[in-house]
Order: sequence, then C-alpha cells, then structure tokens
Amino acid sequence: MISKKDIKYLASLKQKKIRTLNKEFLIEGQKLILDALKNKQSIQKIIYSKKNDDFEKIRIQSKESNIDMQLCSERDAQKISDTKNSQQIFALLNYNQFKSLDIKKKVSEKPLIIIDGISDPGNMGTILRTCSWFGCYNIILTNNSVELYNPKTVRAGMGAHFHMENIYKDSIENIIEFLTYYDYEILTADLNGKDIEKFIPQKKCWALILGNESKGISSNFKSVSQQIHIPGKGKMESLNVAEAASIVIHYLSKK
Amino acid sequence: MISKKDIKYLASLKQKKIRTLNKEFLIEGQKLILDALKNKQSIQKIIYSKKNDDFEKIRIQSKESNIDMQLCSERDAQKISDTKNSQQIFALLNYNQFKSLDIKKKVSEKPLIIIDGISDPGNMGTILRTCSWFGCYNIILTNNSVELYNPKTVRAGMGAHFHMENIYKDSIENIIEFLTYYDYEILTADLNGKDIEKFIPQKKCWALILGNESKGISSNFKSVSQQIHIPGKGKMESLNVAEAASIVIHYLSKK
Repeated sequence: MISKKDIKYLASLKQKKIRTLNKEFLIEGQKLILDALKNKQSIQKIIYSKKNDDFEKIRIQSKESNIDMQLCSERDAQKISDTKNSQQIFALLNYNQFKSLDIKKKVSEKPLIIIDGISDPGNMGTILRTCSWFGCYNIILTNNSVELYNPKTVRAGMGAHFHMENIYKDSIENIIEFLTYYDYEILTADLNGKDIEKFIPQKKCWALILGNESKGISSNFKSVSQQIHIPGKGKMESLNVAEAASIVIHYLSKK
Repeated sequence: MISKKDIKYLASLKQKKIRTLNKEFLIEGQKLILDALKNKQSIQKIIYSKKNDDFEKIRIQSKESNIDMQLCSERDAQKISDTKNSQQIFALLNYNQFKSLDIKKKVSEKPLIIIDGISDPGNMGTILRTCSWFGCYNIILTNNSVELYNPKTVRAGMGAHFHMENIYKDSIENIIEFLTYYDYEILTADLNGKDIEKFIPQKKCWALILGNESKGISSNFKSVSQQIHIPGKGKMESLNVAEAASIVIHYLSKK
C-alpha cells in the first residue's frame, strides 16, 4: 500500500510549481497509460485503486518493463485524481527535457510546429493531437507558452505527448535564426494573409507558427513569416487557433 | 444597487438545472455582451461592478435598447462570475427556444450541422464558432448533446450562439426523416470512410453529423450517412471531433 506522504505528493502535482520543480507529472486513465507504455515513456510507478479490476493489460506490461504498481485506497485515488469520473489508475512520469535549438546540428527535413504563446491548455493539447494525426512530431515552444504537462493539456493531447520526436524550447530570436539558417518556409495563419487555396509552398520544408489566442503571434515572428488566410464567409471575427492549425496542417500535409 | 436575492439567483445560474428551469443564462465580458447587443439578443439586464470603468460602449447601446444596467459590488461580481480574471460585467439572457423540425416547412438550401451527442462543452462551443466562421447558421441538436448554454460552451462559442439562424432540437428519427425528405447529402467523418479529397458532393445541400467524442455517431445515423475520412499519417488514433469538423466544413464550404 502506498504511503500517506506519497499520496500527498501525487496530489500536489496538480500544482504547476510542484511539477516544474520536480520535473514530474501524473497521467490518468488506462488508455493514456497504455499509450505511455507502448511509447517507452519514462514511467516511475503506477498507482491504482480497487475501484476497477480490469487493469490486466497494464499489469502485464508493467511487469515486463519492471514498473512498480502500488495500490491505494479509493479515497486516496480521488485525492490525486484530476477528473470527475476517475478510472482510478495513474502513472507518474518524468518530464521530457526540452531541447535547445542547435544551429550546428543538422535537422531532418520534417515540418516544424511552433507554439508561440498558446495560453489555453486545452488548445495546446488539441494542437499536439492534430500534429500527431498528421505526422508532425517536431515542435518548438516559445518561453511564454502554457506548460506542456498541465493536466488539461495532457488530457486533450490523448497520448500525442508520447509521440513527439523532438520538443524544443527556446527564445524567439534563436528560433528565427534557426529557421532562417535552415531555409524553412515560415508560415502563420492571419486574417490579412493570402488565401490558403492559392498558396503553394516553395521550399523543401515548412514551419507553422501558432500564436496566442488573443494577441496572435509575436511581432518578431511577423516580419519573417508569410501570412496565410482561411477564407470564411460568416459573422465570426476569427477561428480558434487549434481549428486554424488543423485546417492549415491538413492543407500542407497534402502538398 | 442589485439585491442580495438577485445576486444569489445569478450565481445559481452556474447550475444546469437552474438554467433549464428558468430558461435563462448569463454571459460574461464586454466582447460577448457587445456581440449579443449587436445581434439583437433578448437581454433582460446588464450587471456590472466598478472594478472596471470602461463600459461606455455597452452603456450607450443599453440605453438605446432600453436595457437596465445594475451595479453590484466587486465581491458579488466575483460570486456570479465563472472565470478567474473577470471583467465583472454580465448580461442575463433568455434561452433561445429550440425549434422542432417540421417536415411540411420548406427549409432554405443551406448546410446543416447536426450535433449528435457531443459531450464536451468546449468542443460544442468551438464547433459553433467554426460554423459561424464558415457561414453555417443552421444546426440541429440531438437530445443527448451537452447543453448549448453551458457557460463553457458559451465562452468557447465567442458569440457564435448569437449568429445562428435556426437551432433545432429533435429526435434522431425525426432528423433522419427530415434529411431524407429534403434529399440532403448526409455526411459524417469516419476512420473507415472515403478519402475527403476524393469526395465530391452530388446533391444541392449537405448535412454533416458530428458524433460523441468517444462513441461516435448514433447507429441509426450510420446507416443513412456517407462516411468521409481525413487521411492522417501519424500515430494518433483519431482527431478531436471539433478538429475533424473544421477540416470537413472548410473542405465542403469550398465546393
């Protein structure tokens, strides 16, 4: 049985400062845990209650990977859970360390998604999920974006976190230097941009910058990027950033 | 100054049963209120605190429309608010009555979006926002979908609620009868469907069915709809329903 102290620590991981200090986060639910196991994530332990008794798959795979499974009471599970109808199974994971961009290091010619100040954790997770759907596994975060391991982000990501090949975090200046050096086609969705249907990428690989929900992309990015526009004919002022991302990534992934 | 009793009532509108019983809901923030005013929504009154003093536009428009503005304390505003950093201005609105489908009533040949059991309020709001962006103002809700006037749905909708021309709510049987009678091209996004890029609509107008986040669309809808698929090349099992909706509506709105 897990100790009271450990339960207290796991419950405290709902707080950003505890997560970032300890470089650990908690995931919840069978599906997400199986996905983490499948993608060889660094799982420290699995915690579960007896509320459900159908964790056989996880039990087998944890044994194979030498991951400890600890029992807790249903009440304790409720304490550490972040959801209303918890399955009462959790895994404690290490944060993936973010990489810094290294201009001397040749990168593969794969698309890059740049998250520039996204503030809503649900949007962040949804964007990761869309990236994974379209096979975009390389993302760059600016320093002002919402935390990648926020529980809501992880939940909305539906496992996409575990599919990423490279997660960079760097300053806007370094990102621009990097993109320019490697001659990326730098794109962003903008109301005043060129109609997406008339846009044909000219370069080998593209980088899409997704900006903050209310402020858009940073001004430094604006001057180096091509704006593309998703024509609407309705009364709405703008599309949600995650929706714009889906439409643009879908469009570019066909090219 | 607003009465304690009224504050209590406004705060109780966070509960679904109070909203549906009284057919009223609360919206929050300047932008949303201005949009409601612009779109001639049925606003009963506006409530504000003195925390901010920049409600001039709302003040002028309320006067023109004979809408009462009532002052409340900052503490009371906090009680009725549903957000962390509230602007402390609210409007009390009447629910739009949902229409039932009437097979004898000719409808305009506009696209229809059918919300079949969407359960996440954020998704529901985002889908409405996307609909409004692409000019799809006619939606049909099945009886098992999340409440349209849930505060999270309203927030994610960013005013799209006020742009809709017709909001129907009916049984799946009646919806199918209606769509068949008027010869709609009935579509849904499905992993086993036809590649969206190879799909060309054959009929005058289309209806897109969006299903529940985990269960998909209802079985009765399955047998009458054409499945279309958004090809992904990644590791993800599925796209979020709001993302799939954006991509499909964007695609269809070009046809």
